[in-house]
Amino acid sequence: MRRAEELRDAVEAHLRSLTFAPELGQLEEALRYSLESGGKRIRPVLCLAVVEAAGGDVEHGVPAASALELVHTFSLVHDDLPSMDDDAERRGRPSAHVAFGEGVALLAGDALLGEAIRLALTYDDPGIARELVDATLGMIGGQYRDITDDDGDLAELHRLKTGRLFASSVGIGLRLSGVAVPDQAPWRAFGAEIGLLFQIVDDILDGDGLASRLPADEVKRLANTAADRARDRLEVVSGDTRVLRELVDAVTFRTG
Amino acid sequence: MRRAEELRDAVEAHLRSLTFAPELGQLEEALRYSLESGGKRIRPVLCLAVVEAAGGDVEHGVPAASALELVHTFSLVHDDLPSMDDDAERRGRPSAHVAFGEGVALLAGDALLGEAIRLALTYDDPGIARELVDATLGMIGGQYRDITDDDGDLAELHRLKTGRLFASSVGIGLRLSGVAVPDQAPWRAFGAEIGLLFQIVDDILDGDGLASRLPADEVKRLANTAADRARDRLEVVSGDTRVLRELVDAVTFRTG
Repeated sequence: MRRAEELRDAVEAHLRSLTFAPELGQLEEALRYSLESGGKRIRPVLCLAVVEAAGGDVEHGVPAASALELVHTFSLVHDDLPSMDDDAERRGRPSAHVAFGEGVALLAGDALLGEAIRLALTYDDPGIARELVDATLGMIGGQYRDITDDDGDLAELHRLKTGRLFASSVGIGLRLSGVAVPDQAPWRAFGAEIGLLFQIVDDILDGDGLASRLPADEVKRLANTAADRARDRLEVVSGDTRVLRELVDAVTFRTG
Repeated sequence: MRRAEELRDAVEAHLRSLTFAPELGQLEEALRYSLESGGKRIRPVLCLAVVEAAGGDVEHGVPAASALELVHTFSLVHDDLPSMDDDAERRGRPSAHVAFGEGVALLAGDALLGEAIRLALTYDDPGIARELVDATLGMIGGQYRDITDDDGDLAELHRLKTGRLFASSVGIGLRLSGVAVPDQAPWRAFGAEIGLLFQIVDDILDGDGLASRLPADEVKRLANTAADRARDRLEVVSGDTRVLRELVDAVTFRTG
């Protein structure tokens, strides 16, 4: 059984080896720059950990896992644009629009989404691309709420902006492993909990969202109960869930 | 046999009846606004005219044809943004970023691309979505050249930015109709010619591109020879190509 670190290495290697549509020309540089930002690759690792726990073929799942990372990167590139969050830095480096200009960053984001779908469509089963596109649309709905609805429902915003891609990381892993739909419920419930946990910890680290609305103790309590619920969900999953538990710990105790 | 006008009516009716992902919330308004701009729907009509000429089921093809229009609209919404062409108007109305703000227009473009793929994925055959995504990536490569490469190869820019979506309008029509790959060559050659013709006429109408580099007579001559070549390609296609000829005339003599 591969540990989370090994799954992450498999994703990193695949992302580095990706060939993009040749017609993108030099735009490819902006895609690679944005993908090489050294994130934790939590979504693709989660997907592959589900595949492994459910007895699927991890190698077969790597392109779909990378597609999840491409969608996530697309969302970051567009989120960082001046008309959105206007972030000049992303993980200690200039964000894409600072490094390449706004127009190029816009197109790089578009191309990352296109390449994500293209990767998902390398499978015979179109359901993988369907799950990815549905999650992407949910995530875009979350971004829309984020920029337009200051006093809105934070839980719903999180469920969409962060949760939908986490949920589909689990959902795509299940589909890759051939887990029957009636058996998917506890896995999917786990996906919802780890997505929520990730977002609460994110708010703590960034000092915004929940962390700006509630006392620090209360937010930490919310994180711990989300982590407990995620672990509880794994109790009723049939499979070797050691790596998934490792991921819950990694998300709970992450520092950036 | 349905005339181009009837095919366009079928597309308009389908576009109006589209249901978008509910999670988009109010962002849907910006998608509908951008789709209701009253364009000629030349790409979806071309796709359906190919289906009709090749003996396929036009009704079955309507969602795929609409998906082509969604991709085209996505490209217009992003092209109009201040960081790209910075166009405040689109067909006599405020462009999306003027009407809704830059951030919302950005997300509306993203969502239009997502919804286009979702529509293409309603078919059992994932090849329809693959053809659409490949064309989208080619088009993005053309947009990239357009904003970065002032003295570049105009023919290549046109082939990508305009031509790829025209070519896939024909390609998707062929796939919907079950035309065997060995029989597709003349159809696809026709698609390349009508795409080129469309772009030359566009340059004449806008007074840019070819029209800014060559004398007016020369550009008109190029348009007429492209139209002649498009008609020639149809001579060797087996099918009732009357509506496709009608489209060549409509593109040649269009006035806006």
